[in-house]
Amino acid sequence: MQIHPMWDSYPELKAELKETIELINKEVFVRNKEIEAAILDMLQSGGKLLRPAYALLFSSFGDSHSPERARSLAAAIELLHTSTLIHDDIVDEASTRRKKQTIQSKYGKDVAVYAGDYLFTVVFRILSKHADSVEDMTVNTKGMERILMGELNQMHLRYKQNMSIRDYLTQISGKTAQLFALACFSGAMEGSDKKSFARNCYYIGSHIGMAFQIMDDVLDYTQSSKNLGKPVLEDVRQGIYTAPIIFALRKEKKELAYLLKKESAITQSDAQKIQQIVYEAGGVKEAKILAEKYTKKALKRIESLPNTKEKQIIQEITENLLIREM
Amino acid sequence: MQIHPMWDSYPELKAELKETIELINKEVFVRNKEIEAAILDMLQSGGKLLRPAYALLFSSFGDSHSPERARSLAAAIELLHTSTLIHDDIVDEASTRRKKQTIQSKYGKDVAVYAGDYLFTVVFRILSKHADSVEDMTVNTKGMERILMGELNQMHLRYKQNMSIRDYLTQISGKTAQLFALACFSGAMEGSDKKSFARNCYYIGSHIGMAFQIMDDVLDYTQSSKNLGKPVLEDVRQGIYTAPIIFALRKEKKELAYLLKKESAITQSDAQKIQQIVYEAGGVKEAKILAEKYTKKALKRIESLPNTKEKQIIQEITENLLIREM
Repeated sequence: MQIHPMWDSYPELKAELKETIELINKEVFVRNKEIEAAILDMLQSGGKLLRPAYALLFSSFGDSHSPERARSLAAAIELLHTSTLIHDDIVDEASTRRKKQTIQSKYGKDVAVYAGDYLFTVVFRILSKHADSVEDMTVNTKGMERILMGELNQMHLRYKQNMSIRDYLTQISGKTAQLFALACFSGAMEGSDKKSFARNCYYIGSHIGMAFQIMDDVLDYTQSSKNLGKPVLEDVRQGIYTAPIIFALRKEKKELAYLLKKESAITQSDAQKIQQIVYEAGGVKEAKILAEKYTKKALKRIESLPNTKEKQIIQEITENLLIREM
Repeated sequence: MQIHPMWDSYPELKAELKETIELINKEVFVRNKEIEAAILDMLQSGGKLLRPAYALLFSSFGDSHSPERARSLAAAIELLHTSTLIHDDIVDEASTRRKKQTIQSKYGKDVAVYAGDYLFTVVFRILSKHADSVEDMTVNTKGMERILMGELNQMHLRYKQNMSIRDYLTQISGKTAQLFALACFSGAMEGSDKKSFARNCYYIGSHIGMAFQIMDDVLDYTQSSKNLGKPVLEDVRQGIYTAPIIFALRKEKKELAYLLKKESAITQSDAQKIQQIVYEAGGVKEAKILAEKYTKKALKRIESLPNTKEKQIIQEITENLLIREM
């Protein structure tokens, strides 16, 4: 099993991530072996494992650190993330993810619906097996609930051309940012008893998540020519407008608005044109500045963490997320 | 809000069920009010509330009974049931349920996917808020996991014409029976500390669930003429074969098998013919006998419960499930 090369510089963390994936392998059990393989394949498809990595890193502070419990938590976070991806793929009718066929396209939406549901329950099983107290559980379930509520609210905002940056930020704060916040917060809670400390970590995670999602949306507009227009095409057809487009619409209202109104009739060449207009109107640049703002907010709070090697890793990877190219 | 008339004879229980639904109303919160209304509407659409009723009834035994905690549990059980129904409707592309438009057909599968997911997390929130111990949580999450695993395994069995009664029983024991078993078991655990007692209740619930599902499948074949063929049509097109058809296939192999092989091309008139063949081959009668067997098993175990008025209600409703007509 391959762990993403971004962790090569941190061999200890890499080993922990490997054990986390092995734990997941042990916990996922489906009688139908084909479906089990599909789920495990998705869990091992070379994602960055950022969320479990942050959970592991934030569990290192404080006195009550247990590596075993931290791994369980990291596994639960990654499983939660994966189950939301499996369900996202149903909604988006996505045929591929990370260059592999999605569960919904390969096995049908029936398998995708129940596989995601099943993983949800595995998340809770792992959490309750390793929770020290009912309070631990409550903290995690509240975090998970916010993530799903974020998704429900996102629905509301589709095809809303006058969507503001505020709407966009609300949207991504509901889902991506909450998941990162949950990873950092529950990691911190695992290692330390101090709630104020964990709360600080919650905000760190939230800022990281915001920066991460904005950069993800920026990357859709700066893809290599081979993929040009493709991710943009899927989003705009479904009425999903992200930071670059929203910023661009402030400057270049007419032609861009005309193209977007075609909605599901938007063609590949329309999408390329949209991409070009967005770039030229400075949408990409402004979105990058916005991402940077969140990264800086996160880094400022990270500064207050105890001076350990884990703190340094957190700093490095958080900075690197901003300059990544995929 | 209407509580199903089947509870009119038990005013105290009816009042508890009403409070359970009110609790659910309080716990479900979605910013998008249209979606919230859709979810609450589904939760109040006049279902029989059998699962929460059993949870409430079984919580009455033992010394540590807390009405408030029992209601939370009952609410969680009903929410879990509803979330699986919302997701089932995506899989089955069902347009109506209990004579109302399904969430997936009214709001699209995006809303249905996330609404079901959201309700899952509400289940866990309620459970963790009212759990006395982490062990309580583990018990409930394990039960929930079995339900979802049952669904994943069911996928495997579609279009399997040589499906045996054993396959069928495995299938329904995974989903429906587990949910009833969980209702009775966790109800019992709530009121009593004795695990052996709760284990007995688990089996009672499981037998009740088996009888209930078999009768549900029987009713598809004994519908009034107005609906003749309709539920059967949907099932056989999707390759879902239930007890009446499986028993009938033992007697009448040729014509029935020929019709079933048409799969998604099965017409309304084919379905009526299937229904007729199944009836004439004794499939309905044999399925009823099978349901009766499970009811008897349940009643035998119910006999061992402490002699209270709740025991009597459990006996009555369990017997009545067998002779219901809808």
